[in-house]
Amino acid sequence: MNLELDQYFEQQRDSHLDELKEFLRIPSVSSLNVHKDDVRHAASWLEKALTKAGFDNVAVEETGGHPVVYADWLHAEGKPTVLVYGHYDVQPVDPLHLWETEPFDPQIRDNKIFARGASDDKGQTFMHIKAAEALLKQEGRLPVNMKFIIEGEEEIGSPSLPAYVEANKERLTADLVIISDTGMYGPGRPAVCYGLRGLAGIQIDVKGPKGDLHSGLYGGAIQNPLHAIAEIVASFHDKDGTVQVEGFYEDVRPVTEEERAAYRELSFDTEAEKRALGITEDFGEPGYSFIERTWVRPTLEANGIFGGFSGEGIKTVIPAEAGAKITCRLVPDQEPEDIISKLRRHIDTHKPAGVTVTITEFDKGNPFITPFDHPAIQAAGKSYEKVYGVPTVFTRMGGSVPIVAEFDKILGIPVVLMGFGLSSENFHAPNEHFHLENFDKGLRVISDYLHKAAAF
Amino acid sequence: MNLELDQYFEQQRDSHLDELKEFLRIPSVSSLNVHKDDVRHAASWLEKALTKAGFDNVAVEETGGHPVVYADWLHAEGKPTVLVYGHYDVQPVDPLHLWETEPFDPQIRDNKIFARGASDDKGQTFMHIKAAEALLKQEGRLPVNMKFIIEGEEEIGSPSLPAYVEANKERLTADLVIISDTGMYGPGRPAVCYGLRGLAGIQIDVKGPKGDLHSGLYGGAIQNPLHAIAEIVASFHDKDGTVQVEGFYEDVRPVTEEERAAYRELSFDTEAEKRALGITEDFGEPGYSFIERTWVRPTLEANGIFGGFSGEGIKTVIPAEAGAKITCRLVPDQEPEDIISKLRRHIDTHKPAGVTVTITEFDKGNPFITPFDHPAIQAAGKSYEKVYGVPTVFTRMGGSVPIVAEFDKILGIPVVLMGFGLSSENFHAPNEHFHLENFDKGLRVISDYLHKAAAF
Repeated sequence: MNLELDQYFEQQRDSHLDELKEFLRIPSVSSLNVHKDDVRHAASWLEKALTKAGFDNVAVEETGGHPVVYADWLHAEGKPTVLVYGHYDVQPVDPLHLWETEPFDPQIRDNKIFARGASDDKGQTFMHIKAAEALLKQEGRLPVNMKFIIEGEEEIGSPSLPAYVEANKERLTADLVIISDTGMYGPGRPAVCYGLRGLAGIQIDVKGPKGDLHSGLYGGAIQNPLHAIAEIVASFHDKDGTVQVEGFYEDVRPVTEEERAAYRELSFDTEAEKRALGITEDFGEPGYSFIERTWVRPTLEANGIFGGFSGEGIKTVIPAEAGAKITCRLVPDQEPEDIISKLRRHIDTHKPAGVTVTITEFDKGNPFITPFDHPAIQAAGKSYEKVYGVPTVFTRMGGSVPIVAEFDKILGIPVVLMGFGLSSENFHAPNEHFHLENFDKGLRVISDYLHKAAAF
Repeated sequence: MNLELDQYFEQQRDSHLDELKEFLRIPSVSSLNVHKDDVRHAASWLEKALTKAGFDNVAVEETGGHPVVYADWLHAEGKPTVLVYGHYDVQPVDPLHLWETEPFDPQIRDNKIFARGASDDKGQTFMHIKAAEALLKQEGRLPVNMKFIIEGEEEIGSPSLPAYVEANKERLTADLVIISDTGMYGPGRPAVCYGLRGLAGIQIDVKGPKGDLHSGLYGGAIQNPLHAIAEIVASFHDKDGTVQVEGFYEDVRPVTEEERAAYRELSFDTEAEKRALGITEDFGEPGYSFIERTWVRPTLEANGIFGGFSGEGIKTVIPAEAGAKITCRLVPDQEPEDIISKLRRHIDTHKPAGVTVTITEFDKGNPFITPFDHPAIQAAGKSYEKVYGVPTVFTRMGGSVPIVAEFDKILGIPVVLMGFGLSSENFHAPNEHFHLENFDKGLRVISDYLHKAAAF
């Protein structure tokens, strides 16, 4: 451990947290048009923060969607180049009434910072900027060349980034990519992630009569769009949760016996997890553990169903339309386009009579896997161990960072996923927060790792 | 036709419509707490209107819920007593953006008055007050004794009225009840309705994890409440729309061959109805016509399904809860309590793993049927024929006026359903309106019928 750097982080802690709060106050919800200017505001904020940190060529770059923030520092001649990727956009905040304090008014309680984006991913992205700034200030230079790209569309599936990366292929040349947008294995248990699931999402819209109808006068004689959407959503799974879409599992690379053995060694406590989540019954694809269901098996989940009256009391209506939002998590070697085709075929086959069904595709992400024994992965494990004092767990995870597979594909370089979040931190839900213990330790892990990367 | 009365209605037309507009401006939505005072305001408005019309004992009477407006005129010694029932509460107005003009700013276009409640049921209730007022002013007396009870909870299932009627049994003694809360058979085709479906409604709430979860991290390993509610809703019907709840149809009184023959004679144009509704495919319980499916067969309809994210774009969430609102329309001899028990048993049997399900009951109404050959029914047909110049159709209808069966049960007197609405008038939907042709003719039909009732 570099003691000077350690002291520096201690001295700067309050000002770092003040800056982070400023960043978290910007409601950069990428999925909602009403926040378009806020998303851009978050990009400008990063531009200033990277300039202040000592980076060159800092720029907010247009993509057609929300912008990408770029910066570099390329003065470590003969040394490897590390590309840091993060995202400054956040998830929507509803249901707002479940937040204990306002989502965009960051509050520190119990050594945790509460705000939308605290963990996913503003807080984690911010740590990389501050770790580099610390090295530049304390050591006068970085041990490696560095490039940052921070996007504003991760929560909507990174629609613009692949084209941006493709167009800037030469400029983004690097030896490895570091991303901190995943989680630790548990409190005090650092993890390096070597696989992520991909994403394929659709919205299903069902239209029935041209206007809402009285269910007493028309009920029984026309198809109710609510029945139709329920029938479609229910058709996707059997009672055990196995996906019923034909061919859904056919390209899944089977989990190896080595992986299964390694997961068993983690002594994952399913009962504790169930208590934490507030559920009483085990549920999911038969023959797989909780870890396997979320790490190595593909899923199909409804994220919303809507239609008709949802207010207080009753309204005896047959609505003109109803719908559902569906996302699939994909594993190697599933392809998003192929899964969308299979979903379309399934819906076409299961379309209830008397309604029209339309499908809108959301953006897609490929699944990703990187060799577990790559030096960049193993070194990350060592940096964690040094700061946390315990062995690092090497994991695969259920979530998607769509751009990871793109980096792999377009730039052809290894990706290292160094997460500092905890699964209890409510990202994508009310009361998102980030444990400051991991903020403090993370700064030290990242700066140590940049030193190690100099030797790759 | 009474020519003096006819001239009177012509002279008073503008002032009648001004008064009706005043009544329609009151947003008396009974299902929403925010409109509680408006509902009461509508009751006070009626109190003034009935007093002005010349009624005695006019009062806004408490029920524990929204009040009942009572009035009587009992000076026709030795003549029958007619009890008029109506309701002054209205349905919610969402989706508001589909209204061409504001729901509570009544506008006359093309000889139709547009406003929530114009047809259901403020407009029709208002006609009875004005018909009685006309007789009192022009003839100095009513041909029969009259009582009015106008409630404010019809759209939420009349929870307080049965107890009110029971408690006021002596005071409400009458020889028949007239209700105008149903529709005509079609434009220019008057109808007297001799049967109505009953109502039994529930809300189903499904709870999964204690908070919303990220569908990437937890998808596949826990039951998704959205999948569970879809599975429950989908389990209620087979692909043809036949209800799958065990015993649902067992108490249904079969439709007679005479009734089926009479319905066939109506030459109901299913194709025209489909065009009017904007649907392309015939759908419903096999073996029954469109008319039979809506008049004589029971139904189970979802009126709303909700849970998760329904905004723009995607949010990869597994929501903590989801739900649905369900109403059944019942026919003789189904009992609401029995149907609710059967629904509970069905849901219990079909409850998906991994979630808890709770059922909330809404208010109930019995189905109703009255002998087709009763003189009060036949005389109503004659009054329509006199004003409209065409034969009256005798129908059963799909909707529910829960209190009809209660009048039958508690007061033991025949109920005559004289509707002036049209099915195209969007009651319970945006752009509700009422054809003023039927307002004008209705005043004449009602006053003629009150004369005929003097001879019962």
